[in-house]
Amino acid sequence: MYDLLDRLSIVEASAFVAAPLAAMTLAQLGAEVIRVDMIGGGLDYNRWPLSKETGRSLYWAGLNKGKKSVAVNLRDPRGRELVQTLATRPGDDAGILLTNFAGLPWLSQEVLEEKRADAISVAVKGSPDGSPAVDYTINCAVGYPHLTGPDTTPVNNVLPAWDVGCGLHAALAIVASVDRRKRTGRGGRAEVALSDVAMAMVGNMGQIGEVQRNGVDRGPIGNDLYGAFGRDFGTSDGRRVMISAITVKQWKGLCRVAGIEQTVAGLESALGADFTDEGQRFEWRKVLFALIEKWSGAHTLDAVGAALTEAGVTWGPYQTVGQMLADDWRASEKNPLFQTVTHPEVGDVLTPGSPIDFRSLERLPVTPAPALGQHTDQVLAEALGLDSGAIGKLHDDGIVAGPVQGA
Amino acid sequence: MYDLLDRLSIVEASAFVAAPLAAMTLAQLGAEVIRVDMIGGGLDYNRWPLSKETGRSLYWAGLNKGKKSVAVNLRDPRGRELVQTLATRPGDDAGILLTNFAGLPWLSQEVLEEKRADAISVAVKGSPDGSPAVDYTINCAVGYPHLTGPDTTPVNNVLPAWDVGCGLHAALAIVASVDRRKRTGRGGRAEVALSDVAMAMVGNMGQIGEVQRNGVDRGPIGNDLYGAFGRDFGTSDGRRVMISAITVKQWKGLCRVAGIEQTVAGLESALGADFTDEGQRFEWRKVLFALIEKWSGAHTLDAVGAALTEAGVTWGPYQTVGQMLADDWRASEKNPLFQTVTHPEVGDVLTPGSPIDFRSLERLPVTPAPALGQHTDQVLAEALGLDSGAIGKLHDDGIVAGPVQGA
Repeated sequence: MYDLLDRLSIVEASAFVAAPLAAMTLAQLGAEVIRVDMIGGGLDYNRWPLSKETGRSLYWAGLNKGKKSVAVNLRDPRGRELVQTLATRPGDDAGILLTNFAGLPWLSQEVLEEKRADAISVAVKGSPDGSPAVDYTINCAVGYPHLTGPDTTPVNNVLPAWDVGCGLHAALAIVASVDRRKRTGRGGRAEVALSDVAMAMVGNMGQIGEVQRNGVDRGPIGNDLYGAFGRDFGTSDGRRVMISAITVKQWKGLCRVAGIEQTVAGLESALGADFTDEGQRFEWRKVLFALIEKWSGAHTLDAVGAALTEAGVTWGPYQTVGQMLADDWRASEKNPLFQTVTHPEVGDVLTPGSPIDFRSLERLPVTPAPALGQHTDQVLAEALGLDSGAIGKLHDDGIVAGPVQGA
Repeated sequence: MYDLLDRLSIVEASAFVAAPLAAMTLAQLGAEVIRVDMIGGGLDYNRWPLSKETGRSLYWAGLNKGKKSVAVNLRDPRGRELVQTLATRPGDDAGILLTNFAGLPWLSQEVLEEKRADAISVAVKGSPDGSPAVDYTINCAVGYPHLTGPDTTPVNNVLPAWDVGCGLHAALAIVASVDRRKRTGRGGRAEVALSDVAMAMVGNMGQIGEVQRNGVDRGPIGNDLYGAFGRDFGTSDGRRVMISAITVKQWKGLCRVAGIEQTVAGLESALGADFTDEGQRFEWRKVLFALIEKWSGAHTLDAVGAALTEAGVTWGPYQTVGQMLADDWRASEKNPLFQTVTHPEVGDVLTPGSPIDFRSLERLPVTPAPALGQHTDQVLAEALGLDSGAIGKLHDDGIVAGPVQGA
């Protein structure tokens, strides 16, 4: 027994990143997640990247690992009723809905509570007033594109970081809600707005205070690390390396391996500066960058990395995803995070499990995403107790569907 | 009674973003978090941005909201013993350590278990083998800088998104570990590596599959939204707006309000294309962008936004943090996420609480970060049951400290 979230059973009606990631995070800690989708696939079923071999979505396969897939006609009242019944099943660890269809009346808390008074639902939404938004339309509004890149042209983030933050908050909301229901007997709704996650994080990083207390609306500084020492540097073999020296120990180690201790001491005297202060390293960074650049540019990536490791300086190579897969053991089966598994719709892929390593527990096997509708009959039979006649009729009436044959 | 995580008591020994964010996330859901720091402040106590009024860190104030601060001489065996004792206090909901000093022998699980057999500890680390890393030195290694910005020059992320993801996983690990201990009587260690969080997410987004199944190592596409329709567009009043049309409904709404339905239909015939397919919208995006640009550039931001809202298209304005605070109600006290509170070390700042909105519960009041050492005496008395004589002696011996007077 894995003994973590194995008891939980969650019904997910969602699409895209945040909510699917929330449920997958819990599935990878042992929870049963029953994802319901429109027959033929929901809004995210064809999201790029697609497998060039099967045409199916590598993205969908990535965000639905370890789930059961039920295909339902969500436009039909009988299909909706079926989802409501699934999401309000009895049991301390069932009766949990996760959705990003926050405004849908038929998935409202009120409707769920008619079927189960202590129903739990967690909804991901765009803005706190319920208006729609996606990661991109929030990110632009919280200032990061103005801080990213070398100049004032806004640069979008490629990673949907707010979706990630929002989804992980939703996962936490589910676990906290279930714990509370066990203690108090009360269910309820929790909502997480993408914009709230983003704007809270801007505050958490001190950037609201920076505007309000200092009157500073920060501008872009390219690849420089803000407030301490760090940037990307070239190496003699045409690679780039990120070097960061935030602590005094890291800074001193960097000066030592780069052979610039004397020069830096001289500079400190000449400038009246003290580079053990991280802020002064930042203020004089152009000068210091030039010294490090000279050193890094004279050595290969391997040599630079070995010296930095020896000195306790944090560093990393710039890699494309392809280079990472070719060169970095952390993104391979040498790392127990990963296993190569066969996803029914896209084939064999090196696939991560949960990034949480409970040291005293065996890791759960990494499980692939299902085919759409793969578990329709199983869930109807086991979770809802329908017999084969009733299940057959739901198929005949077009209320549910199994996997597409030969897909 | 807020009835969520109010019962939990967590000892945090950490610095920077991931671990402090993990504990703060739980504090903002009601948990008691006792953050212990070196007397005079830990590695992150002077991180930028600093308040120009007090010289204190707005960043530290941002990431330690709602915690109790205890200042301890962590280099002294008696100080270390004190932290170990705090972190292994009896009680179902105590005996929990969160740290990012993953390699410190005196905070190892083995040491904690000597004091409490079912101790729980959660450690954030750089790479799975324990080698150090920070957000920047992981981000460069997982491919995103190569995908960000207009060309092949790598562009660093400014948001420490991997820290955020790692911290939220750590928060989840704590809650899951406590739940498991209650059921099974077993404690244990959980570890979350920054690189595992990042590399797992690259896999989750389908990018490992893209390399392995399709042989494609994706390059940069600037501000374009990958795989569907989206980009930033200028408006007649010199603003920029992010427009995203991922679903068919959004795309049709966009064509309607931009007045390009006929043109698009003509284009589809001429090209033999079907723009209800998100992938084809992406493939022909340059043509489609030019049409939308013509429309957006002829109208003000307000007019463009109103039209897009009416059409159900997701959009957002580009804003600096200053503009966000000036113009956006979501980043103001009109949004219950935020309250203006006085942080002892940096003054009044608009401050977020938890982004999770438990609809049936009153929100907890937003609480500021403590002054360093503000709760030293309180915690020693209440949590450890020391009398004033014992506490006085710890002060006299330089093992603990209270807040700096007049700071």
